[in-house]
Amino acid sequence: MIVLVARYVCKPGLGDAVEEALSRMAALVRRNEPGCLLYHCCRSQENPDVFLLYEQYATHAALAAHRDTPHFQKIIEGEIVPMLEKREREFYSLIS
Amino acid sequence: MIVLVARYVCKPGLGDAVEEALSRMAALVRRNEPGCLLYHCCRSQENPDVFLLYEQYATHAALAAHRDTPHFQKIIEGEIVPMLEKREREFYSLIS
Repeated sequence: MIVLVARYVCKPGLGDAVEEALSRMAALVRRNEPGCLLYHCCRSQENPDVFLLYEQYATHAALAAHRDTPHFQKIIEGEIVPMLEKREREFYSLIS
Repeated sequence: MIVLVARYVCKPGLGDAVEEALSRMAALVRRNEPGCLLYHCCRSQENPDVFLLYEQYATHAALAAHRDTPHFQKIIEGEIVPMLEKREREFYSLIS
């Protein structure tokens, strides 16, 4: 089990557009990726231009496959990343 | 629904002790707090002295009640906080 925590800081004022794209992304992940056990998109209550994605993958292969999907390439890399000022990713193990 | 993301940085070398205490904490939260919908404790794969807690509460009252439980006071405040160098908390809304 791999936990990926991604933090996105949008270019100012683009939070609503990023939220809309993330909602489409989450629906496609749930429909197409059985190896993705959890895909939660969260928006900061303090700063509406900040998002946190909390993702769980069954295996390293499932995580690699996630990045190769057409929806990752189109929505994350193609639409969302150009709207970001900063993107950070951290990897964790679930201990309980 | 409120999402709380807590990040703990331990004093050097105390990661194993914090993991043990967090495991006890998670069991007590699951057993006693129906308003806590998710309580995931994660340990960084890059730095074993870093933890991330991903928590979801049904209501603000459930979050307030969480902080008032005997296990929060004893384990988080009494045992874990003294082992930390840094503690950060952020609040999010789940968008999908």
